[in-house]
Amino acid sequence: MNDAIPADQGTLPLVIGVDIGGTQLRAAVLQGAQLLSRVSMPTGEYPKPEHTIPRVFNAIEQALKEAHVTFDSITGIGVATPGPLDNRTGIIYSPPNLPAWERVPLREIFQRRYQPYQFPIYIENDANTAALGEYMFGAGRGCKDMVYLTVSTGIGGGVIIGGKLFEGVSGTAAELGHMSIDWKGERCNCGNLGCLEYYASGTAIARMTNEAIAAGQGAALLAFVDTMLEHPTTIPDQAALPAAQDLSEPDEWGGVEEAPRVNAHTVARAAEAGIPLAREIIAQAGEALGVGLVNIIHIFNPDRIILGGGVTMMGDMLMEPARRITQERTMRAPYESVRISIAELGVNVGLIGAGALCYYYQKT
Amino acid sequence: MNDAIPADQGTLPLVIGVDIGGTQLRAAVLQGAQLLSRVSMPTGEYPKPEHTIPRVFNAIEQALKEAHVTFDSITGIGVATPGPLDNRTGIIYSPPNLPAWERVPLREIFQRRYQPYQFPIYIENDANTAALGEYMFGAGRGCKDMVYLTVSTGIGGGVIIGGKLFEGVSGTAAELGHMSIDWKGERCNCGNLGCLEYYASGTAIARMTNEAIAAGQGAALLAFVDTMLEHPTTIPDQAALPAAQDLSEPDEWGGVEEAPRVNAHTVARAAEAGIPLAREIIAQAGEALGVGLVNIIHIFNPDRIILGGGVTMMGDMLMEPARRITQERTMRAPYESVRISIAELGVNVGLIGAGALCYYYQKT
Repeated sequence: MNDAIPADQGTLPLVIGVDIGGTQLRAAVLQGAQLLSRVSMPTGEYPKPEHTIPRVFNAIEQALKEAHVTFDSITGIGVATPGPLDNRTGIIYSPPNLPAWERVPLREIFQRRYQPYQFPIYIENDANTAALGEYMFGAGRGCKDMVYLTVSTGIGGGVIIGGKLFEGVSGTAAELGHMSIDWKGERCNCGNLGCLEYYASGTAIARMTNEAIAAGQGAALLAFVDTMLEHPTTIPDQAALPAAQDLSEPDEWGGVEEAPRVNAHTVARAAEAGIPLAREIIAQAGEALGVGLVNIIHIFNPDRIILGGGVTMMGDMLMEPARRITQERTMRAPYESVRISIAELGVNVGLIGAGALCYYYQKT
Repeated sequence: MNDAIPADQGTLPLVIGVDIGGTQLRAAVLQGAQLLSRVSMPTGEYPKPEHTIPRVFNAIEQALKEAHVTFDSITGIGVATPGPLDNRTGIIYSPPNLPAWERVPLREIFQRRYQPYQFPIYIENDANTAALGEYMFGAGRGCKDMVYLTVSTGIGGGVIIGGKLFEGVSGTAAELGHMSIDWKGERCNCGNLGCLEYYASGTAIARMTNEAIAAGQGAALLAFVDTMLEHPTTIPDQAALPAAQDLSEPDEWGGVEEAPRVNAHTVARAAEAGIPLAREIIAQAGEALGVGLVNIIHIFNPDRIILGGGVTMMGDMLMEPARRITQERTMRAPYESVRISIAELGVNVGLIGAGALCYYYQKT
């Protein structure tokens, strides 16, 4: 069992969770996995730290106000940001999703702002905080070795080994989206070639679809998109789609900036409506995801893999090919030891995971 | 610092190390990394456990005799075998390199044999024992997070995280040779497609060369092989080749059974002599190795990667392309944190690593 989780979350001290995403920034006052308030705003189109950080402080202070608490009752702030970063120094190193953030000493900036209150500030990459959130409060409770994989705009990973967050020697471990599964493939924006993220992320689904459209294979899909835009309520099987609150989070789906009409979300809806091209592309991404899962199982031999992020909510059309590949290609012994689950914390995983940082380090 | 290593190995208790390889089995009496005796014999062509295990016992008893010690002075036996296996139960699961070993309860068999002596028996896969050996007595001393990669007939991995052997939930973690780097590639004998092992192992070098020969590209190489067989002392730059004791270990080079005249060893000698085909194939394997290193750095963010196994002794013609790919494709932060070193323990790494198991678990 996970000794970091008290049976009663109501006895946990209050913390602030902050989730700085490429498109949305959020802040919440938390008690365990329970949100006492939640503030969300766009990060801005070209988010520079000098514009974004004051907005983050505003969000935090608004979240406190909404929860009717003061800084005096807060025992720590946990901040989730895109990686890479060094969680010991709290310095952010130019993340692909926040490209203007070049060596930003985020912890120091927070410490200066909240110096009077003396509570600790923890900075961690968003995949690690999500892993920690799921481990402490979600689908990973009771695990020993757990891998969290978030499939969204990009693909990130967070790994728990023997109950501890695996951070690596400089805090950048578990960049699972940036393992090459095609060593002679195309260049990913991380510099590596043929990354898992390049084939299985929301951005990948959008890119592959737009490529097919550009190659003249998209007639049925484009017709569907037009219908969808004109008559959004006539789409069949809408109940089977991801819940509305997820669809409202554009950074969960990827590729928005590349082709507003055909992003991963649109492809998912077209696939639900039976458009063959959309189904094929999502199945292809599912197979790539399966390849990533095989590698993860061979490398980590975990007892649980938890899949989070908006793309994994596409359900069986993505997950069936992923499961098939995983079953076909994984060595038997580690395959028999692993359970692959869908994340439980939903859209608040970023905030809950950020708050979980405080509990993890304070060991309450 | 590594608190598992006493400053003076001469104060360490005596242990027995056993290394059961696909082609050679070895036993030694050890004090730390020091071999007091060493017995080596062929495993046999189709090594069934009922034939091999009695030979292992003979080797152990011969090693004791040669070291002039009795079982009473031995404090443990560590056994390295090919994986996959469960190190808690000591059961071997049909390793690709010992295919007739189907769920062999090796620890139980050892315990029955040596029941009167009451010392503990530890079974671990050979890559993990080698990692432990290098960590405690070789190139990994003082590391925090270390990855050992052995490139030989196959490719295996062993990982130390925070000073502990990372075993996974059922003892099969760190199968680094069986991560796919080509998700639409050929099927590896593990069942996965496009494994690192398929492109960068000794077997891969032999296979690629034999394929090129079959395609009619091998005239110069075959002429070289004929010359080498007729005049083995006329090969240029022989001093630059791996040391003789390594060349005498056929399981370090791979592909022997497929094409006796053109194995990885032969290709290495042809490359040293300047045969372009041989140099190209080794460079290709080096690039694949580099891709594996990039993935390892992104996944583990280690402070050290140690390369062992006969193939890594090919030197710059393999390592230069590997280093180039690693430098080109790795994210900067984890790249700056890692040092890539060649293993220090040489051909005895299997025995020293097996013995190290005893020290690791007994924490002397």
